[in-house]
Amino acid sequence: MKDVEDIPALMQRMGAAARAAAAELAFAPAEAKRRALEAAAAAVVARAGEILAANARDLDFAREKGLAAAMLDRLALDEARVAGIAAGLRAVAAQDDPVGQVMATWDMPSGLHIRRVRTPLGVVGVIYESRPNVTADAGALCLKAGNAVILRGGSESLHSSSAIHACMVEGLRVAGLPETAIQLVPTRDRAMVAEMLRAVEFIDVIVPRGGKGLVGLVQAEARVPVFAHLEGICHTYVDRAADLEKARRVILNAKTRRTGICGALECLLVDRAFFEDHGAPFIRDLVAAGVEVRAEGQLQAVPGTVPAKPEDFGHEFLDMICAARLVDGVGGAIEHIRRYGSQHTDAIITEDDAAAARFFAELDSAILMRNASTQFADGGEFGMGAEIGIATGKLHARGPVGAEQLTSFKYLVEGDGSIRA
Amino acid sequence: MKDVEDIPALMQRMGAAARAAAAELAFAPAEAKRRALEAAAAAVVARAGEILAANARDLDFAREKGLAAAMLDRLALDEARVAGIAAGLRAVAAQDDPVGQVMATWDMPSGLHIRRVRTPLGVVGVIYESRPNVTADAGALCLKAGNAVILRGGSESLHSSSAIHACMVEGLRVAGLPETAIQLVPTRDRAMVAEMLRAVEFIDVIVPRGGKGLVGLVQAEARVPVFAHLEGICHTYVDRAADLEKARRVILNAKTRRTGICGALECLLVDRAFFEDHGAPFIRDLVAAGVEVRAEGQLQAVPGTVPAKPEDFGHEFLDMICAARLVDGVGGAIEHIRRYGSQHTDAIITEDDAAAARFFAELDSAILMRNASTQFADGGEFGMGAEIGIATGKLHARGPVGAEQLTSFKYLVEGDGSIRA
Repeated sequence: MKDVEDIPALMQRMGAAARAAAAELAFAPAEAKRRALEAAAAAVVARAGEILAANARDLDFAREKGLAAAMLDRLALDEARVAGIAAGLRAVAAQDDPVGQVMATWDMPSGLHIRRVRTPLGVVGVIYESRPNVTADAGALCLKAGNAVILRGGSESLHSSSAIHACMVEGLRVAGLPETAIQLVPTRDRAMVAEMLRAVEFIDVIVPRGGKGLVGLVQAEARVPVFAHLEGICHTYVDRAADLEKARRVILNAKTRRTGICGALECLLVDRAFFEDHGAPFIRDLVAAGVEVRAEGQLQAVPGTVPAKPEDFGHEFLDMICAARLVDGVGGAIEHIRRYGSQHTDAIITEDDAAAARFFAELDSAILMRNASTQFADGGEFGMGAEIGIATGKLHARGPVGAEQLTSFKYLVEGDGSIRA
Repeated sequence: MKDVEDIPALMQRMGAAARAAAAELAFAPAEAKRRALEAAAAAVVARAGEILAANARDLDFAREKGLAAAMLDRLALDEARVAGIAAGLRAVAAQDDPVGQVMATWDMPSGLHIRRVRTPLGVVGVIYESRPNVTADAGALCLKAGNAVILRGGSESLHSSSAIHACMVEGLRVAGLPETAIQLVPTRDRAMVAEMLRAVEFIDVIVPRGGKGLVGLVQAEARVPVFAHLEGICHTYVDRAADLEKARRVILNAKTRRTGICGALECLLVDRAFFEDHGAPFIRDLVAAGVEVRAEGQLQAVPGTVPAKPEDFGHEFLDMICAARLVDGVGGAIEHIRRYGSQHTDAIITEDDAAAARFFAELDSAILMRNASTQFADGGEFGMGAEIGIATGKLHARGPVGAEQLTSFKYLVEGDGSIRA
């Protein structure tokens, strides 16, 4: 791919093309967007061989660079993964179109009839790492919401992403939509990332998809607003009034179902009185399942635990490891989570409505749960369809960010020659 | 007032105090917030003499500095204006409390019950110019939405704002709420503005209230997100299918009711076919009312108009002046507004539903109107109660920004020992 072009000029060219496409997409019929995604899915199926060949080139390059095994796994495609990409495109195609939805409607005594309707955001920039499927997933969600998108994938996945991107462009062409609605940055030059983060004229919001290093860099450097979460330091608090069986079931799932996702439990808080009465069989379950439980104080009495260090609290392990601590009631849990949490997802296990209500009121995580596994923190599990990520900021989008959260709104006001007194 | 303190240290101190207050305010009872605003209104009435004396000191200072008459008028208080401040506080007190409102609720096949509820944003920074009433208006709206606020008023209004601020603090004290929920920057040092714009750790959103100079500076320099509009370049387009009487009534009101507000008409677009059939009696009305109509091309045939210069289009006059141009149908109007508008408020006068629908679909101004005066662009006229301003950005808040728009949300999820498959 060309690494020769002047990067600011490339940003100008891609940015202007995205703005022009966004102006058309804003009122593109829902049916055209649906057709583009169906056609892209068909193209992915038809060109699976090309996509896998491109992926093989990326994998060769990545092995030469000495990439870690986990990274290689994220990068690697096979027939099943390619089929998954096509299925994901069809799922987004089948979702409701958010654009034009009437969010509210009311009449004023002045005679004005007011509607608040959903509109696209404009241009989204997506910066991601090695997973080539993000090219299709993020491109599809942005298109569904009527946004143009500029995709900047990891340099090690450039061939794979380009092959998938070509399918997306074919979908746009088939549907008669502007081909620059979904653009892929065609260079590995990292200067383009810095350029995108400053491109307030061309990009309305940046979505980083990747590890803490990438997200932290984006949050620190971006002049464009960012939808993201830096970490998912998810807590589960076992209250004095917890049902023991629910606690055991939920905690084992929250920690071990998948350890690498942002909704995985990272810290277990146990009410002191509960522990004195019932012990902590859920910690024994974790130990038996192979989890390294880093316990503090009295909890170290549970066989198989190891002593916690101070830095284990507020840490995102993304592994078969968790921290554990006794706290004094729901107040103690709230205090701990305020200090160490990341405002992603935190849960309480309790049968006491008052304790749950206090936990829900006094914490401000994007998602708060009662008697449920934090692994449910996912757009699909919320009924939102596919998501582009989970946000922990306070502005605009929070929690799972699906097509609906990638929209803005405008007011449509109708009068009858109405004038203001 | 003290101009001696180290400004970064002042920001740290005020920021930390605001964060602490916000954590308490987030779940303060609606009744306590209501009581604080009522008590603040009572204090404003009781201390009207002190407020007027402080204002007299500010006016002396401003006259010495040689401030323009318009500026002095914005700064000046009298008994009626002080009564207006108290009435404004009582109006916000009487509004619905947005915090805790359930925005949506649904169940998932997994057994999860999900609610989306309103929460405060956190800490709001308000940067304003000489109007001392903003101290009360902005402070009240932020409190209603459960936010702590840091107010930085114009240096020429510091005594007046301090006197009003003391009443707000008295209200907080009476209601048992943290007194640092509403803080006023106690120095005239402009370095504090720059400090606030960078204070991402302490401030969640900045709202600038003032002219284009202030808003432009804030938008260019802020690292903290901004809710604002830079200009209100409002257009009214007279379509081929306009009702002539509605056009005359609406246009005269849109331009002349108040010329200094952001919803005032600044540019009139007239369909060429309409003009050929009916002329432009609404331009004659404007001329008769004393408006300088800067007309282009054939419109100059209307007696009393003056020739427009190119820079009159896309200009916010805020005065008894407007630009006027012929366009070719609704498509021509859309093209003109996309090029010259400011995405604030734009209107179409037509009896043709298809033309109105196209105008509504293809433009993306925060507010689009049909057969109504753009002067209705106001939170009160939208039924939202008081507003802190009008925003033209795409993210989070758009159009009139009232208490509801000063909130965020969180998801509350209830299961019954629910685990993810």
